Amino acid sequence: MSIINNKNSLEKSILYVILIARKIKGGNMGIEINSRLSSNIKNMKRSVIRELLKLTSKPEIISFAGGLPAPDTFPIDEIADIAKEVVLNHGKTALQYGSTEGFIPLKEELIKFLKTDGISVSEKQIIITSASQQGLDIVGKIFIDPGDTVIVESPTYVGAISAFNSYKAKMVGIEMDDDGMRMDLLEEKLKELDKKGTHPKFIYVIPDFQNPGGVTLSLERRNKLLSIASEFDLIIIEDSPYRAIRYRGETIPSLQSMDNEGRVVSLYTFSKILFPGMRLGWAAGPEEIIDKFVVAKQAMDLCTPPFNQAIVTEYLKRDKLQSNIESTIEEYRQKNQLMLEKLDEYMPDGKGLKWTKPDGGLFLWLTCPDYVNTEEMFYDAIKENVAYVVGSAFYGENPKYNSLRLNFSYPTLEEIDEGVKRLAKVISSKLK
Amino acid sequence: MSIINNKNSLEKSILYVILIARKIKGGNMGIEINSRLSSNIKNMKRSVIRELLKLTSKPEIISFAGGLPAPDTFPIDEIADIAKEVVLNHGKTALQYGSTEGFIPLKEELIKFLKTDGISVSEKQIIITSASQQGLDIVGKIFIDPGDTVIVESPTYVGAISAFNSYKAKMVGIEMDDDGMRMDLLEEKLKELDKKGTHPKFIYVIPDFQNPGGVTLSLERRNKLLSIASEFDLIIIEDSPYRAIRYRGETIPSLQSMDNEGRVVSLYTFSKILFPGMRLGWAAGPEEIIDKFVVAKQAMDLCTPPFNQAIVTEYLKRDKLQSNIESTIEEYRQKNQLMLEKLDEYMPDGKGLKWTKPDGGLFLWLTCPDYVNTEEMFYDAIKENVAYVVGSAFYGENPKYNSLRLNFSYPTLEEIDEGVKRLAKVISSKLK
Repeated sequence: MSIINNKNSLEKSILYVILIARKIKGGNMGIEINSRLSSNIKNMKRSVIRELLKLTSKPEIISFAGGLPAPDTFPIDEIADIAKEVVLNHGKTALQYGSTEGFIPLKEELIKFLKTDGISVSEKQIIITSASQQGLDIVGKIFIDPGDTVIVESPTYVGAISAFNSYKAKMVGIEMDDDGMRMDLLEEKLKELDKKGTHPKFIYVIPDFQNPGGVTLSLERRNKLLSIASEFDLIIIEDSPYRAIRYRGETIPSLQSMDNEGRVVSLYTFSKILFPGMRLGWAAGPEEIIDKFVVAKQAMDLCTPPFNQAIVTEYLKRDKLQSNIESTIEEYRQKNQLMLEKLDEYMPDGKGLKWTKPDGGLFLWLTCPDYVNTEEMFYDAIKENVAYVVGSAFYGENPKYNSLRLNFSYPTLEEIDEGVKRLAKVISSKLK
Repeated sequence: MSIINNKNSLEKSILYVILIARKIKGGNMGIEINSRLSSNIKNMKRSVIRELLKLTSKPEIISFAGGLPAPDTFPIDEIADIAKEVVLNHGKTALQYGSTEGFIPLKEELIKFLKTDGISVSEKQIIITSASQQGLDIVGKIFIDPGDTVIVESPTYVGAISAFNSYKAKMVGIEMDDDGMRMDLLEEKLKELDKKGTHPKFIYVIPDFQNPGGVTLSLERRNKLLSIASEFDLIIIEDSPYRAIRYRGETIPSLQSMDNEGRVVSLYTFSKILFPGMRLGWAAGPEEIIDKFVVAKQAMDLCTPPFNQAIVTEYLKRDKLQSNIESTIEEYRQKNQLMLEKLDEYMPDGKGLKWTKPDGGLFLWLTCPDYVNTEEMFYDAIKENVAYVVGSAFYGENPKYNSLRLNFSYPTLEEIDEGVKRLAKVISSKLK
């Protein structure tokens, strides 16, 4: 097969991925399926990111596309020993069904962990979830009726968009700047909705090192957000996957710790501070809402694997998490710094390019001039063996097409250098 | 505290459990919650069984209430070794994110496993799920719009009721006899619905050793069910958690293996053939439907834990499952037989009591005369230190109150003997 053919078939693949990401495929089997589907599933599409990831798995491609943690941060030896011990010593309970609420010793460890972050919750204010994506699914389940309005950042996490879409929410996006969601725009929008008689079900925010924006909500805005939520009587969903991964600057109090009114529900995950492969997370908030989480989760999967909960409990009891977080921070700090340096070095000046400078987390957000379409540019990037996620994937409404998300946690330092160089070449060719 | 007080507080606890099982609790915190909830969650209630299980965990109570497999069937030593090896040898992938579809080597093993049961499916016709409760949740997600009709057995699995309820299905129950769902009643009901212009979204059945009925759908009825499904153009959801656990008689072909039209989706789980604590199952069916499962699951939890999938894959590769199933069957056969013997021995004759004689699975179903209310009798049973699940929990519509479900997989042989004796005493006191 010639290179030309390969390129053609690659373009077809990309096109195919974009098409299936936009629209559920038609049928090709015995019985007709589409007419039987729920309107929920008709409203859903495959995650653009996860489909693109499949494309970018070719070894010659340097991928800034995924959201994967670096596997060398996983404490392999420790977990191997603990896994064996847990099965040998507690197999009869760890391999049995567990409670929907979660393993109590794990909750006790999490209460201690949250206390170090200024958060004081009781055991009944925590539920163990199958990572925070399930937390988002449960939020959708318990709050969203079809057509309900929810407020999100613009852009926001693509997995939240999928989850809320699957309950047919109407997402209203509020723009961000370097200090996170703009409170002036939020207030304006809420007043506008209020005039129409629309009461949003909640405000969904990722305050720390936002995905995909990389920005952090300032303390002043956190105060303002809580007072706006109080004024309009709204629930806040605080998604905190990256909060512990800060490279620079002072930690800003979490919304959960600042909440005096019982209106903040926070979602947490071990995916970025330990590893994602056990699918473990938790939610914390007012007892009455967590109780609804339990009811919803029971019908979803009965319980999160007790086996996995027991292993991570033992890891936490050995007091290893903090040092693992610290070494993860150290590694990502270097990668983040190198990516910022290389963007400065390779990207053309004075052409209207800009990118965020995150103080933590896994991502930064690069914005091109309005006339650049990063979906179209994706073909060229793949030809140059570099990948990103198209910015348009991250909008709950009114997508913009001139941005892209770059991940720096997964690629090596060498790949970051070479990848940014390749990307700069691709972007430069598009700039006027 | 006196015994009297203890009894009073026990009765209060039972009452409380029954109340919260029936109705979601009211609020007691800062902000008002109920008005913000989705109609989905308002439609849901805590599982009666799981709430009752909490009550029956006192050591003096012999519980026939749960659906727990016997922990001595778990292959502890083997899994301990495999868990350690998987982390050491494959930790960087097993602890990383995985694909929503599932770990391909696990799918390959499952294709072989299904082949031994006469089922031939391709890799794209299988998705790994977080056990079969998630399979049920996905079925609800992709097929049910609020008010849609679905056909279920009457009685049926309480977890299916929860899942379908959470999408606001209207469940229509079809009565069973010793050969499973009655096809004459099914046909009649479908014609009646058809006249009203109602097209059910699917027929949900547990053909082998039904939960809670303990009965098995005969071959003749399986043929009839497929022809009815074809005539009325319906999808069949075949739930197969217990199929491999047969003590007596010949295996009857599964609906999946008999389906020539691509209308059967089958749900499987490792919970009863290996252990439930890793929350692993799978669904198999037409590629186009499995593709929708993938889209739905992506928004629910991204993927089932790759760690758990890798461990069970290795266990399957070592060809250990079959012998584990055989020893499980041997243990449950004895327990089943003893429970049947003791029911014959202790239960009063000629008073209108009857119970099913399952050829496999974990449960049997005991029916009292119409005038006995097993919900009210539950108080007396707990006082006699024996527990069951009230039959009324298992109805998608029109609950009946004179039956109860008994589990024989979890209690020991001694407990079965003593527990049936206690239960016979309780039931006898209610009979005229």
